[in-house]
Amino acid sequence: MRKIAESTVRRLSLYLRFLEKFEQEGIATVSSQALAERGGTTSAQVRKDLSFFGSFGKRGLGYSVPELSRTLRDILGLERPYNVAVIGAGKIGTALVQYPGFANRGFHIRWVYDRDPRKIGVSCNHLKIRDVAQMEAELAEAKVDIAILATPADGAQGITDRLVAIGVKAILNFAPVQLDVPADVSVQHVNMALELETLSYALRNR
Amino acid sequence: MRKIAESTVRRLSLYLRFLEKFEQEGIATVSSQALAERGGTTSAQVRKDLSFFGSFGKRGLGYSVPELSRTLRDILGLERPYNVAVIGAGKIGTALVQYPGFANRGFHIRWVYDRDPRKIGVSCNHLKIRDVAQMEAELAEAKVDIAILATPADGAQGITDRLVAIGVKAILNFAPVQLDVPADVSVQHVNMALELETLSYALRNR
Repeated sequence: MRKIAESTVRRLSLYLRFLEKFEQEGIATVSSQALAERGGTTSAQVRKDLSFFGSFGKRGLGYSVPELSRTLRDILGLERPYNVAVIGAGKIGTALVQYPGFANRGFHIRWVYDRDPRKIGVSCNHLKIRDVAQMEAELAEAKVDIAILATPADGAQGITDRLVAIGVKAILNFAPVQLDVPADVSVQHVNMALELETLSYALRNR
Repeated sequence: MRKIAESTVRRLSLYLRFLEKFEQEGIATVSSQALAERGGTTSAQVRKDLSFFGSFGKRGLGYSVPELSRTLRDILGLERPYNVAVIGAGKIGTALVQYPGFANRGFHIRWVYDRDPRKIGVSCNHLKIRDVAQMEAELAEAKVDIAILATPADGAQGITDRLVAIGVKAILNFAPVQLDVPADVSVQHVNMALELETLSYALRNR
């Protein structure tokens, strides 16, 4: 499969959200125009995005909602569940553990780690906070698909190296630091100040 | 100025971070190669990104660190401070109020609102949580540049309409819902499940 841009992957995720809503409402077909309106883009962009993955729509009839949903779920890797470990049980980490939107997309948070003795053993949304010193011992045999890094900046690279050593291939990074990882490990960096900067850019260039 | 893609704006933010670190370290010039390595991209991409805004680099000498920093701060609208209001004092809202990375980029959270009587009046990082019923009365005369929406999905559109009515032109949306806004209002949607889906896509298509 051709490598596609991250911005395309993000739009596919948005299309899938609308398609799933249409499925629930029993809508059988949808036009590229309708998807474009919901996704804040153009129908030409929708057709281009979907053409990466073969041809779906029928001229004049639009896309089959269940067929396109299934295909997008497959493309996005959502036809299987993922085991997720959260490292760092601070404000962000615990908010994520309690976020209901993950499990219903198949992302199951099964472990949460911290280094603070006052937090270790405390329950957080039915999960006991574990001691990060035990992380390798506990996770070496487990199949961790994705790690969410919600530690302060100073410990982030060290934890990353330890996660890579036990075979984790995907990291969602909330720590305000760029991570060094081998080429076969994917990192997605969530940077709140950067989100605000896309808005200050928009305000500046109105 | 030409409209540039959001992915370009994001890279400019990343370049600026590295440039500011170089400034602190007293480094006077930087090559596009060095910026590319830090930003996880190619030197050709760096040169293309910066060429949008005129020509900076000198062949063989690289970019002047203070000059390029100043220009990027100007392009990104960071030469002025922004007044920010947070709506919703739940886990995400209070984590954001306490996040130190905003104020040092010029994003000053000055107000935090909630509808829960148990939260109203409580202090959160030196800010008193205010009653959202009073929002228009209190903010109509204030200059709110950016609102951060951290409410549940159900109330998000209603709050958005009220923010738009008092003249807010930029919204960072954490609520899991697409917002309808007039064309002159910018919305940046932070969607945690979507961040994970860019990783499941990467795992699926390795």
